[in-house]
Amino acid sequence: PAMDDDDLRRGLPTCHKEYGEAIAILAGDALLNYAFEILANPPQKTSIAMETALEVIRTIGTASGVRGMVGGQAADVLMEGKSVDKEALEFIHTHKTGALIKAAIKAGALLGGAKGAQLESLDRFGYHLGLLFQIKDDLLDVEGDQDTLGKRAQKDAEKKKATYPALFGLKKTREFARELLDRTISFLASFAGEATPLREIAIYVIKRSR
Amino acid sequence: PAMDDDDLRRGLPTCHKEYGEAIAILAGDALLNYAFEILANPPQKTSIAMETALEVIRTIGTASGVRGMVGGQAADVLMEGKSVDKEALEFIHTHKTGALIKAAIKAGALLGGAKGAQLESLDRFGYHLGLLFQIKDDLLDVEGDQDTLGKRAQKDAEKKKATYPALFGLKKTREFARELLDRTISFLASFAGEATPLREIAIYVIKRSR
Repeated sequence: PAMDDDDLRRGLPTCHKEYGEAIAILAGDALLNYAFEILANPPQKTSIAMETALEVIRTIGTASGVRGMVGGQAADVLMEGKSVDKEALEFIHTHKTGALIKAAIKAGALLGGAKGAQLESLDRFGYHLGLLFQIKDDLLDVEGDQDTLGKRAQKDAEKKKATYPALFGLKKTREFARELLDRTISFLASFAGEATPLREIAIYVIKRSR
Repeated sequence: PAMDDDDLRRGLPTCHKEYGEAIAILAGDALLNYAFEILANPPQKTSIAMETALEVIRTIGTASGVRGMVGGQAADVLMEGKSVDKEALEFIHTHKTGALIKAAIKAGALLGGAKGAQLESLDRFGYHLGLLFQIKDDLLDVEGDQDTLGKRAQKDAEKKKATYPALFGLKKTREFARELLDRTISFLASFAGEATPLREIAIYVIKRSR
């Protein structure tokens, strides 16, 4: 396939291995589209304001498209095999993976009624959580093995992909990830125990082994 | 590429020819997503009710996804090279191309304030217009040449694709298309001159040479 040519994900055959490339592409289109089908059909009983529903659609829409995930993936494809500096790497990371993680946090915040400074704090938490997730992904590709990861390891180096470990080395990247975890959680400082699940998610992101 | 492997569209190189397959897939994702980004940002000055905006998103969303365009394309891919009956062919046609044409008509109707019987008539007009479009496309593939079409002709027969001409022959398909045009326009009977552009679109669909 033209992208993400791999045989395994989460220990299972990838979609194109099981159903062929055409169906895999269409499954991606269908799921992307299905997100908006669900978002435009908020359950009646929750009485979500239509204004909020539209803002959630805007949030997920912006994060998924050219200004988010698709844009980051395109940059990643175009930069493959080329030398990438820290700025370009952060652009790829925050867009390709980070934007949608950030949008998921913001969508939850909007639906929960967050506004002003609270919404802003959660948005910044989401941004850093997304970056943290991708840096950990880079580390796992170097440190992990296929059985634990459920996908092929050491793939980034093989494809000469721009990653944090490739750019800064393993030691510096691990340090950076630890600092970034503290920074990420710091954006939850104004919340009490109600933000514990979010703190745990951040810790999980850095502790996960797959 | 895994689908629609062709060099020309509207007389220009196809996206994957110009930019490679990965970028072509991402361009498709980006444009699909962009539709929802636009729909969730109705221009302020038009004062579209948020309820209407959400219903338009639902309409386009349902028509694009598994229950519409993507579902029809998947059926088309899965049926390639197999024998297809009239029901399966109509399923492919009304979903792959028809659903989005129908949705475009319905979205316009909703934004224009149509309700009840008027909305129903326009919806049925859209369904038949979509089918008419695809049957004409099948005819053009048989009758046309590359210079006029702006894309390769006689491709369906080569790929043994299920089409109306393949199933019923050219003569019967032309007759059916003519009858279908009358039937399509008949759903506009309750509208006066304001529906003239829609009548002209239906006639254009059948008269077009590309």
